[in-house]
Amino acid sequence: MEKRKLRGGMVGGGSGSLIGPVHRMAATIDGQAEIVAGVFSSDPEKSKRFGEELYLDPSRVYADYQEMAEKEAALPPDHRVDFVSIATPNVYHFDIARAFLKAGFSIICDKPMTCSLAEAKELKSIVAKSGKIFALTHTYTGYPMVKHARHIIRQGMLGKINKIVVDYPQGWLARLLESGDESTRNWRLDPQKSGISCCTADIGTHAENLVRYITGLEIEELCADLSCFIPGSLLDDDGCILIHYKEGVRGIINVSQISTGEGNCLNIRISGTKLSLSWHQEKPNDLICKDIEGCTTTYSKGSPVVCSEARSASRLPLGHPEGFIEAFANIYLETFKAIRAQVKDQLVPVCDYPTVDDGVISMAFIETVVASAASNKKWTKMLQ
Amino acid sequence: MEKRKLRGGMVGGGSGSLIGPVHRMAATIDGQAEIVAGVFSSDPEKSKRFGEELYLDPSRVYADYQEMAEKEAALPPDHRVDFVSIATPNVYHFDIARAFLKAGFSIICDKPMTCSLAEAKELKSIVAKSGKIFALTHTYTGYPMVKHARHIIRQGMLGKINKIVVDYPQGWLARLLESGDESTRNWRLDPQKSGISCCTADIGTHAENLVRYITGLEIEELCADLSCFIPGSLLDDDGCILIHYKEGVRGIINVSQISTGEGNCLNIRISGTKLSLSWHQEKPNDLICKDIEGCTTTYSKGSPVVCSEARSASRLPLGHPEGFIEAFANIYLETFKAIRAQVKDQLVPVCDYPTVDDGVISMAFIETVVASAASNKKWTKMLQ
Amino acid sequence: MEKRKLRGGMVGGGSGSLIGPVHRMAATIDGQAEIVAGVFSSDPEKSKRFGEELYLDPSRVYADYQEMAEKEAALPPDHRVDFVSIATPNVYHFDIARAFLKAGFSIICDKPMTCSLAEAKELKSIVAKSGKIFALTHTYTGYPMVKHARHIIRQGMLGKINKIVVDYPQGWLARLLESGDESTRNWRLDPQKSGISCCTADIGTHAENLVRYITGLEIEELCADLSCFIPGSLLDDDGCILIHYKEGVRGIINVSQISTGEGNCLNIRISGTKLSLSWHQEKPNDLICKDIEGCTTTYSKGSPVVCSEARSASRLPLGHPEGFIEAFANIYLETFKAIRAQVKDQLVPVCDYPTVDDGVISMAFIETVVASAASNKKWTKMLQ
Amino acid sequence: MEKRKLRGGMVGGGSGSLIGPVHRMAATIDGQAEIVAGVFSSDPEKSKRFGEELYLDPSRVYADYQEMAEKEAALPPDHRVDFVSIATPNVYHFDIARAFLKAGFSIICDKPMTCSLAEAKELKSIVAKSGKIFALTHTYTGYPMVKHARHIIRQGMLGKINKIVVDYPQGWLARLLESGDESTRNWRLDPQKSGISCCTADIGTHAENLVRYITGLEIEELCADLSCFIPGSLLDDDGCILIHYKEGVRGIINVSQISTGEGNCLNIRISGTKLSLSWHQEKPNDLICKDIEGCTTTYSKGSPVVCSEARSASRLPLGHPEGFIEAFANIYLETFKAIRAQVKDQLVPVCDYPTVDDGVISMAFIETVVASAASNKKWTKMLQ
Repeated sequence: MEKRKLRGGMVGGGSGSLIGPVHRMAATIDGQAEIVAGVFSSDPEKSKRFGEELYLDPSRVYADYQEMAEKEAALPPDHRVDFVSIATPNVYHFDIARAFLKAGFSIICDKPMTCSLAEAKELKSIVAKSGKIFALTHTYTGYPMVKHARHIIRQGMLGKINKIVVDYPQGWLARLLESGDESTRNWRLDPQKSGISCCTADIGTHAENLVRYITGLEIEELCADLSCFIPGSLLDDDGCILIHYKEGVRGIINVSQISTGEGNCLNIRISGTKLSLSWHQEKPNDLICKDIEGCTTTYSKGSPVVCSEARSASRLPLGHPEGFIEAFANIYLETFKAIRAQVKDQLVPVCDYPTVDDGVISMAFIETVVASAASNKKWTKMLQ
Repeated sequence: MEKRKLRGGMVGGGSGSLIGPVHRMAATIDGQAEIVAGVFSSDPEKSKRFGEELYLDPSRVYADYQEMAEKEAALPPDHRVDFVSIATPNVYHFDIARAFLKAGFSIICDKPMTCSLAEAKELKSIVAKSGKIFALTHTYTGYPMVKHARHIIRQGMLGKINKIVVDYPQGWLARLLESGDESTRNWRLDPQKSGISCCTADIGTHAENLVRYITGLEIEELCADLSCFIPGSLLDDDGCILIHYKEGVRGIINVSQISTGEGNCLNIRISGTKLSLSWHQEKPNDLICKDIEGCTTTYSKGSPVVCSEARSASRLPLGHPEGFIEAFANIYLETFKAIRAQVKDQLVPVCDYPTVDDGVISMAFIETVVASAASNKKWTKMLQ
Repeated sequence: MEKRKLRGGMVGGGSGSLIGPVHRMAATIDGQAEIVAGVFSSDPEKSKRFGEELYLDPSRVYADYQEMAEKEAALPPDHRVDFVSIATPNVYHFDIARAFLKAGFSIICDKPMTCSLAEAKELKSIVAKSGKIFALTHTYTGYPMVKHARHIIRQGMLGKINKIVVDYPQGWLARLLESGDESTRNWRLDPQKSGISCCTADIGTHAENLVRYITGLEIEELCADLSCFIPGSLLDDDGCILIHYKEGVRGIINVSQISTGEGNCLNIRISGTKLSLSWHQEKPNDLICKDIEGCTTTYSKGSPVVCSEARSASRLPLGHPEGFIEAFANIYLETFKAIRAQVKDQLVPVCDYPTVDDGVISMAFIETVVASAASNKKWTKMLQ
Repeated sequence: MEKRKLRGGMVGGGSGSLIGPVHRMAATIDGQAEIVAGVFSSDPEKSKRFGEELYLDPSRVYADYQEMAEKEAALPPDHRVDFVSIATPNVYHFDIARAFLKAGFSIICDKPMTCSLAEAKELKSIVAKSGKIFALTHTYTGYPMVKHARHIIRQGMLGKINKIVVDYPQGWLARLLESGDESTRNWRLDPQKSGISCCTADIGTHAENLVRYITGLEIEELCADLSCFIPGSLLDDDGCILIHYKEGVRGIINVSQISTGEGNCLNIRISGTKLSLSWHQEKPNDLICKDIEGCTTTYSKGSPVVCSEARSASRLPLGHPEGFIEAFANIYLETFKAIRAQVKDQLVPVCDYPTVDDGVISMAFIETVVASAASNKKWTKMLQ
C-alpha cells in the first residue's frame, strides 16, 4: 500500500442525522481517512444533494446500498473504498453489513448491531467468512480514561470486584413526551426500525458493553423491569435491571430516556475489595478512584501517569478537554490500524475496537432483558 | 411551663458510640434542652464514668433503663426529664421505648425503630395509648434542602413523577472486610443485636423514608437482591432493590456498605415529566433541579428563595456550610415543639419529625425486602 | 477544679445578630460549657428579653458590660463565668475586652480584634499583663481539612512554596446594593462601628490569617486596590491585593462583598514546587492536592489517613458533613483546653486557637491595605 | 467558486508540536477544508518527512515559507491554497504572515500575533492593504458557552458589571522546573523565539482576550507583578495583574505556569449588579450564573435555551462533551465563512473570529504588563 489516506464510504447518516456527522468527523479528524462515497438517504435525490454538501464526487453518491456495493466493488483497488460506515436505523444494519462484507469491504457499524440475536450470530459467521474487519461503535470504550479504568483493573488494583452500578439517565424522550414533538429521533420508538427495544437497545447495550470492556465480566442472569412512559409507545423508554455477573459480582443497570433534564449521563462505579473506581461520561477526562481509607485519587487525561493506551488515545495535554467525537475517533483509529494492515496484506495486529462478538453479546443482552421483563420480571439466564 | 430548657435523658450512646454524641449535640446545640440523666452502658460502672464525662449529677446516672424509668418518674415534675433519647443497638429499642412511654416520658428513638414489624405495630399502639410524643431520627429529613425538595414537589413543579433512583453506597464494611478489624460498629452484623438485616435496616430504611418524605409515595411491591460479601456474615451488607411505588412510579434503591472508599454517599434523583431534582447528602446544602430543556437550577441553603421550612431549618446564611449534626438537630427542634406544647398542656401543633408511623413502614420495608430476597428474589407486595 | 462545665458570658450577639448564635452553639455543642450570663443589647430592656429567650437567670443578664464585669467579678469563684465571648460590632471589642481582662476573665473575641493597630498592640499588652486566655475567632482555622493542609505543608510535601492565591467573593452587599435594604448587617459599612474598612476588615483578615495559619508565611509588602461600589459608602466593599510574602512567595488576595450570588466562597490555592493544595470553604470537608504529574488526591474529613489534629477536630466519620458551626466550635474547644488548665492552676498547654498576636497582625494588615490603597495603590511595606 | 473544500497550507506545526495537530484537526473536522501544502520544519528534510505523514503531495511540501509563498502563488487559482495556518514559535509569525498576505493568501495565525506592539500595528496595516482575511486563534472564544456568556451580557442580564476575576493557573513549567526536562515546549522561555514574555504572552493574552470578547471591556490601566521562578529563566512564568477596565470595572488577572498539577485551568468570573457568571475551561460545556438571591442557573451546551451562536457552535446534543479541538474548529469555521465569501467574490459577512485588531490589543497588553512590572510594578496606562 502506498502511503495514503484510507478511503471510506458511508450508508445513512444524511440530513438530520445525529450520528452521521459524528462518524464523518471521527473518521477524518486524525487525517487518516477521507469519506469519498456514500448513500445518505433512501431517497436518491436527497442522497445526491447531501453528497454535494460533503463535496463528494457525484459519481460516488449512490441511489442505494446495493448499487454502492456493486459499483464500488467494480472500481479498481486503488480507487474503491477501504471501508463502509453504517449509520442507518438499526433494522437496516444487518442487510447492509452483509452486502458490503460479501462485496469485500470492511465495516464500521453503528450499534446495536442488528435487530435480533439470530441475525447477530449470522452476521458473526458472515464476518468470519469474509475475512474482513468489522467494528462496532461503542463510543464510550474510546475514551482515554475508560482505557485507564480497564488498565487499573487489569493490574489487580481493585482486589476482588464485588459490585457494579451503572446509572445512565437521558432525558430526550421526556422532552418528546412533554412537547409532543415528533422529532427525527423517534424512529427509535418504532419497532419497524428499532427492533424489540428502544432504551435497552440504544443505551442499555452501551452500559453492558462498558462494564464488560472495563472488567471483562459477563452476565450470568438478570431481572429486568422495563417501562413505557411515553403514551402509546410500544417500546421501553426506561429500564431497571438487576444483574448477577459471573464470579459472584452483583450489579445494577439503570437506563432511562425519560429522566427529565438529563443529557447523556452515563455513570459507572465499580467497587472492589481494595479500591473502587467511577467514571462519568459527562466529565470524561477524569477517572476517580477511592481507596479503603476514603482517600480519592483522580487521574486525568493527559497526565503522564495514565497508562499508555490512555495516553495514546489522547490528542492534547492535561487540562485541554476532549470529548465524545475524539472518543469516537479513537474507535476509528484502532479499526484503521487493522484495516491498514489488511490492505497491506500484513498480519492484523490486536486492536482495541468493539467487534462483531460484542455485537452478538449486546443482542443477547437485549433479548434477555426483554424476555425477563415480559415474563413478569423474573430472573432470567443470559441467552447465549 | 416556666420558661426553661427541656430536660433530656438518654439510654445508650456511651463510650465508643457514633450516634450517642450526635443525639447529645443535636439535643443541645440550639439551647433548647439539656441532658440531665441517663444510662450509658449495660455495665453500671462504665455508665457512671461516662456520666461524669458529661458532667451529669451522679444521682441521675442509672444502672439500667428500668431503674431510670422508675426513678425519673418518681422525681417531682419540675425536675424529672421531659424526654428520653434512645441510642442503643436496635434490639433494645422496643423494650426501652415501651418502659419509658409507660412511665410517661416522650421518646426520641434512633432508627430502625424495632427489630420486627410486629414489634413496631405494638409500639405504635403503646405510643397511642401513652399520649406521649415519639420521634424517630431519620436524620436526612432534617436537612433544609430536603425540605425544599419536598416543597417543590408539593407545588407540582415536577409534573407527574415517573422515576426515583436512590443510590446509597457506604464503604465502612469494606474496610472491616479488608482489615479484619472488629470495630465497635459491628454489632450491626450481629442478628442478636441488629435484627434480620444489617444494610437494609441501617441505611435502606433511610432511603425508603427519604423518598416518602419528599414525594409522599408508598411502595406497592419490590424485588430485592441482597448479598453478604463479608465472609461468615449472616446479614446483608449490600442490596439492590427494584421498586414499584404507587401511581405507576418506578424506582431503584441501591444500598451498600461494602462500596470501598465511600463515606455516606446517599443520593436521590426524582424525575417528573416537567422537572427532575437530585440531592446528595455529602453536599447537602444544594438542591439541583433540571428542567425539560436541560437547564439546571441549584438552590442553596440560606438563599431567600428557598421555602420557609428550609429557611427555618437553616441556622446560617448562604455559603456557610451546615451538616449532619444540624440536620439531626432539626429533628430534635421539631420534636421539642411538640413536647413543649404537651408540657404546657397546649394543643400539639403539626410538627415536622418522623413518627412511630414512619417506624412501622420502615419495619414493613425491611421485612418485605428480606422476604423478597429469601424467596429467590421474587417480586413481593409490601407488607402492611 | 471539680469536674464541671465551663461557665461562659457573652457581650453582644443578641436579637438579629448573625454571629451571636454561632458563638453560643460553638461554645455549647460539645457539652464543655454553658452560657450563664450576658449583655445582649445596648438597650437593657432588649438585653433582658433576649436573656429570657436563652433561659438565663435574669439576675445575670446585665444592663451593660461594665456592670457585668463588676458583678461577675464579685461572684464567688465557683459561680462566676470562666470566660466572656465578645460578639459586638468591631468598635466595641477593645473596651469590652480590656474591661473583662482587667476584671480577671478570659476572652473569646470576634474578629477583627480592634479598630486600629495601636489598639491591637495595647490589647496585646493588656492580655500579657492579665495572664488570661485570649482567643480570636478566625473560624476557618477550625476546619479539620485546614489543619490537614497545614500538616501537609509542615511535612514538606509541597517543596518550596511559590504562589498563594486566595479568592474570596461574597455577595451580600450586592444584594444590599440592589435592594436598597437597610439590613442589620450594614453596621459594617459604618466607620463609627466598623473602623477604617468594611471588606478588608471583615473578610480580608480571614484570608490573611488563613494563609498564615496554613503556611506560616508573613507578608513583606503589598499593593491594594480597594473599591466602594455601594453608592455613598465610605468603606471598601471590594479589594484586589497583590502580595509579596517573605521567602519570595507571590500572592493575590481577592476579597469582595459585591460579587453577586456568592455566599461565603473562600478559596485558597497554594502551589509548591512538588505539590499544590487547594481548599474551598463552601466544600470544607475536602482538601485537594495536585502533584507534579497532574494527579489529584482528595483527602476527606473523617478518613483515617488525615493528620491527628484534623481527626480530633472532626466529630463524625467520613461522608457525614460538618460545617461552619463545628469549625467555630473547634476554636472554642482549643480555647477551653487552655482555660481549663488555668482554672485548675495547671500549666497551659500549647493550644490551637488564634491569639491576640493574630489580632495584631490582622490589624497591621488592614492598616497596610488601606494605606496602600490611599497612597495611589502603591506597594507598601507591611506595618509592624 | 465551485462547491469544494477549501485548501489550506500550514507553516510550522510539525513533529513534536502541540498546536500543529490542533490546527489541522480544527481545519478539517467539519469537512470544510483539507490541508494540501506546508512547511513543517526549518529542516527541509524533516519537513518533507512530516508531509509524508500527512499524506501530502510531496511537491507541495516546501523547504521554507518563502518558497511556499512563491510557488503556491504561482499555482493556478483552482489549485493553490486558500489560506495558510501559522503555527511556528511567536517570533516568526510576523514575517511569515507578511509574506503570505503579500502573496495574496488569507491567514490563520497562532497567538500571540507578533513579538511587539510595533510589529502588530505594522501587520494590521499589511492586512488592511492586502484585503485578505486574517484570523487569530484565541481558542477560548470558540467555545459555545463563552458565546452564551457574551450573549447574556449583551442582553443586559448582568446589570452594571463591577468586577472581573480571571484565574488561569497552568503547571507545565512547574513540571519542567522539577524534572529539569528540556521539553520541546521551552522555546517559550527563550526570548529569541518567544519575545519579551512567556506566561503573559502565552496565556495572559488569552485571559485579556476572553474578558474583552465576553464583555467588550477595554483596559485603562494595570499594575503587574511578574515572576521568574524557573532558575535562570529570563522570562516571566507567573504574573499577578490588577486591572482597571473602562467604566469603573475592577479586575484581576492571575496567570501562572508554575502552578503545580494544574493543566489549563482558565476560570473567569464576571460580577454584575444583578447577576454574575462564571466559566471554567476545564468544564467548558457549562456556564454558571448566580443571581442576587444566591440561586444558581447552569446553562449547558446543547440545550435549546442557549443562544443561537452557542447552538450553532455545538456539534452534538446535551450531555455529549465537546472540547478544545471543537472550540478551535469553531474559529476555523467562522474564518472559513469569510474566506469562502471572498473566494466567491461576495461581500464578506460579519464573522465571529479574532482578528488582527485583537492581535494589536494583545501586544499592547503584553507590553503594558511588562512595562509595569519593570517599572517597580507601578500602575501603567494601557499602551495604544
